[in-house]
Amino acid sequence: MPEYKAPLRDMQFVLNEVLAAEEHYASLPGCEEATPDMVNAILEEGAKFSERVLAPLNQIGDQQGCQFNEGEVTTPEGFKEAYQQYVEGGWPSLAHDPEHGGQGLPESIGTILNEMVGTANWSWSMYPGLSHGAMNTLTEHGSPEQKETYLTKLVSGEWTGTMCLTEPHCGTDLGMLRTKAEPNADGSYSLSGTKIFISAGEHDMAENIVHIVLARLPDAPEGTKGISLFIVPKFMPESGERNGVTCGSIEHKMGIHGNATCVMNFDNATGFLIGPPNKGLNCMFTFMNTARLGTAIQGLAHTEWGFQNSLVYAKDRLQMRSLSGAKNTDGPADPIIVHPAVRNMLMTQKAFAEGGRAMIYYSALLVDKTKQAEAQEKADADALLAFLTPIAKAFLTEVGFESANHALQVYGGHGFISEWGMEQNVRDARIAMLYEGTTQIQALDLLGRKVLMTQGESLKNFTKIVHKFCQAHADDEHIGHLVKELAALNKEWGELTMQVGMKAMKDREEVGAAAVDYLMYSGYVVLAYFWAQMALVAHQALADGSSEAGFYNAKITTADFYYKRILPRTRSHAEIVKADIDPLMALAPDDFAF
Amino acid sequence: MPEYKAPLRDMQFVLNEVLAAEEHYASLPGCEEATPDMVNAILEEGAKFSERVLAPLNQIGDQQGCQFNEGEVTTPEGFKEAYQQYVEGGWPSLAHDPEHGGQGLPESIGTILNEMVGTANWSWSMYPGLSHGAMNTLTEHGSPEQKETYLTKLVSGEWTGTMCLTEPHCGTDLGMLRTKAEPNADGSYSLSGTKIFISAGEHDMAENIVHIVLARLPDAPEGTKGISLFIVPKFMPESGERNGVTCGSIEHKMGIHGNATCVMNFDNATGFLIGPPNKGLNCMFTFMNTARLGTAIQGLAHTEWGFQNSLVYAKDRLQMRSLSGAKNTDGPADPIIVHPAVRNMLMTQKAFAEGGRAMIYYSALLVDKTKQAEAQEKADADALLAFLTPIAKAFLTEVGFESANHALQVYGGHGFISEWGMEQNVRDARIAMLYEGTTQIQALDLLGRKVLMTQGESLKNFTKIVHKFCQAHADDEHIGHLVKELAALNKEWGELTMQVGMKAMKDREEVGAAAVDYLMYSGYVVLAYFWAQMALVAHQALADGSSEAGFYNAKITTADFYYKRILPRTRSHAEIVKADIDPLMALAPDDFAF
Repeated sequence: MPEYKAPLRDMQFVLNEVLAAEEHYASLPGCEEATPDMVNAILEEGAKFSERVLAPLNQIGDQQGCQFNEGEVTTPEGFKEAYQQYVEGGWPSLAHDPEHGGQGLPESIGTILNEMVGTANWSWSMYPGLSHGAMNTLTEHGSPEQKETYLTKLVSGEWTGTMCLTEPHCGTDLGMLRTKAEPNADGSYSLSGTKIFISAGEHDMAENIVHIVLARLPDAPEGTKGISLFIVPKFMPESGERNGVTCGSIEHKMGIHGNATCVMNFDNATGFLIGPPNKGLNCMFTFMNTARLGTAIQGLAHTEWGFQNSLVYAKDRLQMRSLSGAKNTDGPADPIIVHPAVRNMLMTQKAFAEGGRAMIYYSALLVDKTKQAEAQEKADADALLAFLTPIAKAFLTEVGFESANHALQVYGGHGFISEWGMEQNVRDARIAMLYEGTTQIQALDLLGRKVLMTQGESLKNFTKIVHKFCQAHADDEHIGHLVKELAALNKEWGELTMQVGMKAMKDREEVGAAAVDYLMYSGYVVLAYFWAQMALVAHQALADGSSEAGFYNAKITTADFYYKRILPRTRSHAEIVKADIDPLMALAPDDFAF
Repeated sequence: MPEYKAPLRDMQFVLNEVLAAEEHYASLPGCEEATPDMVNAILEEGAKFSERVLAPLNQIGDQQGCQFNEGEVTTPEGFKEAYQQYVEGGWPSLAHDPEHGGQGLPESIGTILNEMVGTANWSWSMYPGLSHGAMNTLTEHGSPEQKETYLTKLVSGEWTGTMCLTEPHCGTDLGMLRTKAEPNADGSYSLSGTKIFISAGEHDMAENIVHIVLARLPDAPEGTKGISLFIVPKFMPESGERNGVTCGSIEHKMGIHGNATCVMNFDNATGFLIGPPNKGLNCMFTFMNTARLGTAIQGLAHTEWGFQNSLVYAKDRLQMRSLSGAKNTDGPADPIIVHPAVRNMLMTQKAFAEGGRAMIYYSALLVDKTKQAEAQEKADADALLAFLTPIAKAFLTEVGFESANHALQVYGGHGFISEWGMEQNVRDARIAMLYEGTTQIQALDLLGRKVLMTQGESLKNFTKIVHKFCQAHADDEHIGHLVKELAALNKEWGELTMQVGMKAMKDREEVGAAAVDYLMYSGYVVLAYFWAQMALVAHQALADGSSEAGFYNAKITTADFYYKRILPRTRSHAEIVKADIDPLMALAPDDFAF
């Protein structure tokens, strides 16, 4: 049975030693309460809850799944009780506005909590996770009355929320959505239509559910410019009456069985407009960015879960002798961790888990700045975050799926067997490359919308940071060799961008053709930057005479491993970014198969 | 609901136009019956059976799975009846010795049939597939009496077979196995022990099951040199009595739900020695090589299934407009096949499906030669097949899993939903990288046992063929550009091998560290050879004025796509093969996590 132990030492390393979070919180208006003691207390309590309450429900959730019966959804055994504990612990309110009952801690503290909660049990974490998206949308776009009525209940955790975007005929292409909102005499609206893939759309964990819904007003312009945003509660807050929104069925799916993926039918459901008419998609972007970073955490979560468990197995399972001579001479065979191919899978997972953590926490601190900083600092953070979000989402979920598969592979044939939990981890990880915008959509967002539409400015925001780092440490006796490679990649990144940009001026399809490889290339370079930084910090700690030599030496080794044995993947991606588009675009649809 | 259409045109292209199978069969002793008419008739009948009988049961098999009840296994609805039809159609006997009731067709015809049967329904295909392994073992190593008693029943399909190797504590490391075989007074043996992961170990499809079992005689030498091979029937052939071999349970697993993966308990079960005592593992190698090529077919099967279905979806699903302007101006959006990222996933699947087919059929014709040719021709085929088998098994199952994931991704969020069938395809594909020797084991077999232990001779057998091809077509006006790249890779392949060989003389762990990337590199080069050949054949057909310009142009485009947008992956693998081993081997087991 798989287990979870929150990697507190590593979380603290990234937060305090690499990203200097103490200074960050101390200097940011409204974040002063996040003192080191407070942060540590939250980490420790969150770890206990995640390890003891949520992790043991992860496999149960997969096996039992959610049950659907006449419009009602029953969540797996223990989910409801765990949610109750979560609410009683005050966790939903952590990073929300005190005006509405929140604890007013920075958003990044919520991210760190979400890592633990999500790693312990991703399916469960989606119930409060969707609420979080609804809360952010209400905070940003809701009227004072809407906040008073809905936000306080969401912040307390008494109610949960959902985001209702997708319809059967449109997911990516929301411009085609058909759900209608007709105005009522009292200023409310009547919504009718069908939404699919609504995570946590119906369940038995909270007394009310607040749906945030995209729909069209009568005579709205066609396409994305005619979409408005509405609040549709399951029960009307005042009367307690059941509203006309019901769950028609739940999906049978590959993974995340513990979370209900609902078809939601709106049949003259009463709703309330949020934000200005026809600006719903703009309002929704707030939620989408949060959700994308949230999904990046999922990539990390499955990496960490697989890494921890496959590491235990690799130390325990005896099979074959080391090629360089027996290591476990008293036993019948050596533990498989001695074999280079097994080590390679473990080191790869370790490099992605720890590097991914740095990428996510860095982004989370940027989110704090986008919310709390002022003027230029806020604008810079906004721009940098916009650039990093599609990379974090797509790259970390892609390598998260890869990592989950490595973990399974370490178990050999046993990895395919359900009781070990590794195949669930792969199945659960698979959705992350699909929802909240597929990898392909993230890639277009990065290369098309972010990088090329800003004439490369968006990229330069980040490469400048890398460049400064490289200049400062080019001759470092310890990390000079890493910095040299990083600087070369940082330069090549700009060149590749130029080349694609030039080609795209002649043929816009070049953007779509290059985007996914460009995104993966970008992800490897971003991670290389964090690994160089982590190696630097580790060397400094050792030079300062740290008593944790093992921990810091492992960081240095993992950085070397990443540079020597993972970063060469950029060679292929760079080639493919530059590759001829013709054979990709040549075939007529009917000529793909005969 | 996913469907299957046997790609007969492509199968014929590879067989007849690329590999000149007509000449092959006509010139090989005992294969003369495989005339073009006969081969076509088999393809067409096999296609009908696969498309109409097996494919519709694929999803049912996944949903229902096998049921276990007090030692008995019930297969999913329709499986038993389909097997009855298969037996009545004479399919099990296709490629077996007429002396035991077989039809005496070449082994390669069986491979081609297996492609269709396996693509239509991999779980179902494993029941006759395991029989095939047992038959080959008996054919090669059984006594005349054993063949008479068991082989004839397996050839007719009345009985099925299994291979019982793995035990709970050993899979890869069979030297540790513990199942005991004590001699009885009548020359038989009493077997006791537990075997796990026995595919088709128990089921309701045939009246008897013949287990081929690895066990130890009393006082057998330790390790792999003390293993013998036994036949253990479920029911004793003469008395009809139930033997002491029973199914203790079946596994709950990620995929291939329609196939029963059994724990088999041997409790003084009566068995009969096959081959000489203590030489069981050598005898088993016959089976293992068959099984590895059989698993390579699985990689192709999931690639083809995913490709066919995602192609239909990509032509049908409307979402967003093409970046270069609307293509489906009458509709609300363009079919997603217009988008480069979607095309890339389709073309990648197409390149792996059609290239993989060429690799497998080429190997299958080599198998014919290892069985029917004489002297040098047989020896050459043996050597070449030994080299290609681990590549075909590991590379094609790795890219098969990748392809299955591309197919799922083309469906977007719907790919994660069970009813579309794409997530089943991914789950079913995952096992192929594990059983019959993991990718990591195949890689060690290739680089260590095959290439380095022969001082590179094994590699040269193949690179010579590629070299000749490149010399002959270097200046070809149509494929010269492909040949140039192929020749460069072929040269680099030898250089990489030399480099690893040199490093391995100092540190044997270098072999394990380089092996997986070396194997993947090799796979891409082997496939490049077949794609160059296929492009050549296609150009010739066009020059000859073929009426199938669409078909042949698609081959040429796909070859270009493969060379320009897939083959650059060799850049990363080559770098990693050469990479420093230190950071891979440095960490002590306890320093992987803190």
